Amino acid sequence: MKIHVLLTPHCAPFDSGAAVMVDVLRASSTIITALAQGAKGIAPVATEEEARALAEQKGMLLGGERGGLKLRGFTFGNSPLEYIPEKVKGETIAFTTTNGTFALARAQRAELDPIMVSSFLNFQATLAQLKAMAPEKLTIFCAGRDGAFSLEDAAFAGLLAKNLGGELTDSAQGAVAIWEHFQGDPLALLKECGHGRYLLELGFSEDLSFCSRLDQFSLVPTLKNGLLSS
Amino acid sequence: MKIHVLLTPHCAPFDSGAAVMVDVLRASSTIITALAQGAKGIAPVATEEEARALAEQKGMLLGGERGGLKLRGFTFGNSPLEYIPEKVKGETIAFTTTNGTFALARAQRAELDPIMVSSFLNFQATLAQLKAMAPEKLTIFCAGRDGAFSLEDAAFAGLLAKNLGGELTDSAQGAVAIWEHFQGDPLALLKECGHGRYLLELGFSEDLSFCSRLDQFSLVPTLKNGLLSS
Repeated sequence: MKIHVLLTPHCAPFDSGAAVMVDVLRASSTIITALAQGAKGIAPVATEEEARALAEQKGMLLGGERGGLKLRGFTFGNSPLEYIPEKVKGETIAFTTTNGTFALARAQRAELDPIMVSSFLNFQATLAQLKAMAPEKLTIFCAGRDGAFSLEDAAFAGLLAKNLGGELTDSAQGAVAIWEHFQGDPLALLKECGHGRYLLELGFSEDLSFCSRLDQFSLVPTLKNGLLSS
Repeated sequence: MKIHVLLTPHCAPFDSGAAVMVDVLRASSTIITALAQGAKGIAPVATEEEARALAEQKGMLLGGERGGLKLRGFTFGNSPLEYIPEKVKGETIAFTTTNGTFALARAQRAELDPIMVSSFLNFQATLAQLKAMAPEKLTIFCAGRDGAFSLEDAAFAGLLAKNLGGELTDSAQGAVAIWEHFQGDPLALLKECGHGRYLLELGFSEDLSFCSRLDQFSLVPTLKNGLLSS
């Protein structure tokens, strides 16, 4: 398997193969949690307007954030802890975030298939699925932060690349080095990175703890016809 | 000092402050060597046409590459070993490369000042100059490779950031982790990275050895009125 990591959102993916979208803080973690708690599907969209249109036309609930905070009139923000069984069971959620849904849109435009979502919460499940699938090429999309590099997404991409092995591009090797720097301590990483520090300021310290947990869930959200489901 | 590293060419620099351009293989290393060997100045330009116009209008010599190879009719390619005293003394060289001169152009458009050039060859000199200058903000431009991330530039940026200290952005922290991964062995790094392997295929193994040497020269090329000089 050839593995390439897009360390920033505007880098070019492989021309074919599978894709994994990584937005540890917090879109990936939230999507995985929502599905694990019983949501039927997540429709990731780039804009608030698209989300509202889906809610109106298809009866979806609304989830997502701008600047880390829940949007006006939305049922959910972007904290995985909000997505509890009583609220999500059987529901489909139109979901828009600053970075994660943008990265998913790029993977779709590149016509990569399948497009999966991963974070620490479903690390082993993602690894097992990729090993079974054994795509010739894998592009890992780091969602990053406002178009720039984010340490936590690069580190998690490195954890995946390191455990998958195969032929690593320069950026995949760089990601592995970044992961190794944190010596297997996801919570230390999330407290150190810029976005983690921002979320701490906003009062989301429980989110950091939750998003740092390895292998809480065994599903791998996969995009099909505009909908993420497990 | 706040330190930011542009891990890929299209990332956004700080809005003000100093800039260092890093293209270890090989534009940075070649520019430093040419000036150390007695060249009067290097005029970095984006295109072959601009270089030829400067040669015709201002009597400059021509240097640079595309695809790693010297351009037709140019006196020099992009191997630092070509820039020997007998050929460069007192000369001004119009210089165009695939990645390095593009990064310099971006630093100029961002109106950063000063704009310096660094590589392993002048590491301590760059460090001393930056410490003396103590800019509030420093953006390190990794030239990368064809618009993508390159391991050797990120690692060298990490070496600079680590030794400068100060407030590091996520990308600067990532660069430090990448440098530390290579445990202070620049030659191992240059043999491992994608561009290094490409240059080895082209027969430039001596360039890799040369470009991996720490502190061969004590000058720091600085851009003024379109000309790099020491």
